[in-house]
Amino acid sequence: MNKNDAFFMQEALKCAQKAFLSQEVPVGALIVKDGKIISKGYNKSVKSSDTTAHAEIIAIRKACKKLKNYRLNGCTIYVTIEPCAMCAGALIWARVNRIVFGAYDAKAGACGSVFNIVSEKKLNHKIEVYGGLLEEECATIIKEFFKSKR
Amino acid sequence: MNKNDAFFMQEALKCAQKAFLSQEVPVGALIVKDGKIISKGYNKSVKSSDTTAHAEIIAIRKACKKLKNYRLNGCTIYVTIEPCAMCAGALIWARVNRIVFGAYDAKAGACGSVFNIVSEKKLNHKIEVYGGLLEEECATIIKEFFKSKR
Repeated sequence: MNKNDAFFMQEALKCAQKAFLSQEVPVGALIVKDGKIISKGYNKSVKSSDTTAHAEIIAIRKACKKLKNYRLNGCTIYVTIEPCAMCAGALIWARVNRIVFGAYDAKAGACGSVFNIVSEKKLNHKIEVYGGLLEEECATIIKEFFKSKR
Repeated sequence: MNKNDAFFMQEALKCAQKAFLSQEVPVGALIVKDGKIISKGYNKSVKSSDTTAHAEIIAIRKACKKLKNYRLNGCTIYVTIEPCAMCAGALIWARVNRIVFGAYDAKAGACGSVFNIVSEKKLNHKIEVYGGLLEEECATIIKEFFKSKR
């Protein structure tokens, strides 16, 4: 764990809160390079009619645009929940260096829970992963969301 | 295999040809519902500075916009190469019914070659997959592309 990881995860939680307020599953993400926030994203797949509009994908696309590159070497992504197969796959293609996530996702997580895409030997890029940072806060916001939906 | 599968894969190959002409790895995809083409896409990740701009993701996003829905129930995707983890994951979230692909991808394929995301029991959607349709044509265009790059 790095010294600013908790700070950046708190920022990702603020993004998740925005998703909550717009009635989307509250997941937030941000991409950091050299200690600076490059992009932020929060889940908006239902409202934007876009299956792919997960927090991570939005943050990746914005970061690519900003850095004018389809690769994000040297970047870390902070995300409030374990990335799914789609997002983990995108992070591999983006050549992100590190993934720091909050809550584990036993139903769809692809950083060890259901799949382990980010450390598959056959792929030509591996990503350092740190899971469980501010796990309780990150899990709570999602639980609260689904409770509010019942 | 359905009776129009080869026709639609030929259309996907035309999309791949467009990627080739713009110097991107030549992969093409299209989404079909009730026998009609809903959307098309071809790989443009490098030129558009967007890691996620694979043929399938572009076709999914366009189809979502057209159908005004983040789900694509009842749709089939035709793609010239076996979808990767990112694209297979997106197809699961989109609730696509069927994937028909051309060439197998031993390096990154996620419909059986490296991962088998589309038939993982823990996920709450499974997709019917047919691989190897017009396999030679779909593989050849990619081989020709990389040959031209050397």
